[in-house]
Amino acid sequence: MEEKRLIQVYTGDGKGKTTASIGQAIRAKGHKFRVCFVHLFKHSEDFPYGEVEVLKELGIETISLVPHHPHFHRNISPEQIREDCLKALESIKKLFHKGYDMLVLDEILVALRDKFLKEEEILELLNQKPGSLELILTGRGATKKIIEKADLVTEMRKIKHPFTRGIKERRGIDY
Amino acid sequence: MEEKRLIQVYTGDGKGKTTASIGQAIRAKGHKFRVCFVHLFKHSEDFPYGEVEVLKELGIETISLVPHHPHFHRNISPEQIREDCLKALESIKKLFHKGYDMLVLDEILVALRDKFLKEEEILELLNQKPGSLELILTGRGATKKIIEKADLVTEMRKIKHPFTRGIKERRGIDY
Repeated sequence: MEEKRLIQVYTGDGKGKTTASIGQAIRAKGHKFRVCFVHLFKHSEDFPYGEVEVLKELGIETISLVPHHPHFHRNISPEQIREDCLKALESIKKLFHKGYDMLVLDEILVALRDKFLKEEEILELLNQKPGSLELILTGRGATKKIIEKADLVTEMRKIKHPFTRGIKERRGIDY
Repeated sequence: MEEKRLIQVYTGDGKGKTTASIGQAIRAKGHKFRVCFVHLFKHSEDFPYGEVEVLKELGIETISLVPHHPHFHRNISPEQIREDCLKALESIKKLFHKGYDMLVLDEILVALRDKFLKEEEILELLNQKPGSLELILTGRGATKKIIEKADLVTEMRKIKHPFTRGIKERRGIDY
């Protein structure tokens, strides 16, 4: 019998949200799951994310949607990002029907936190998840209603982080 | 200049500790780091962990130390586990000098929580970490002193977990 696939959420201000979703993708791949890893707001020119090449090498499809975030690209208007986020939602809905066993939407909750997407738009997306798909959302900004809708939620709570003592993003660790 | 390498701790009762450390290993590997992934208390006959084969395939050395935990193997005495944990500490200290850039000690903090290792034994291990090594500890059971000693600590806090509504470990997700 096909096991029921669920909705997982990794949120909070601590390190470990994206890496946990990478780890889930790797574990799933080890059992021959068909995995797709979508990242939002991550632009390879800002940081050459080490994981992307490895995921590709393993046959995990990686897709970059809404590559710019105004925090790093101040010349892009919030209206433009909003429009890109709406297009991203449509692309994600199409991915729901491509036969994947697991779909990671890395940093999608940042779109909610930063008001590029509305809570009801994310909830509507979650309502469309096929039963055969494990869906993983990451990013600061999970709301009460999204937590209610999800099956598994972990808050990554920052107890200590070297950024707070001035250590910058480190290659191989933070990207 | 060689960047300073740090101590990371992933603790708490939520899902995401091991997967975050897998994700860190993958990201580091993407930047050609030499990575070693040690797991404790995980026995492939209990659960065929999907990540192990993938990590190996990527050239990440995986080592299993203290494969049994009394929770799953009630015929093994706590004294035997204590002895195995002490041997594991010695093996880990040798790994400190094998030229790795990153060493993951997955679930080592469980040894502390379950009193197979003493806090001072773990602290002494941390004191011996070479400056060139990123060391990652996971598991419930981080103490105040271990948090003080670490550079980066995230508490994975369980907000919701399907286990609590009777859903069992799922292949590709939990192992």
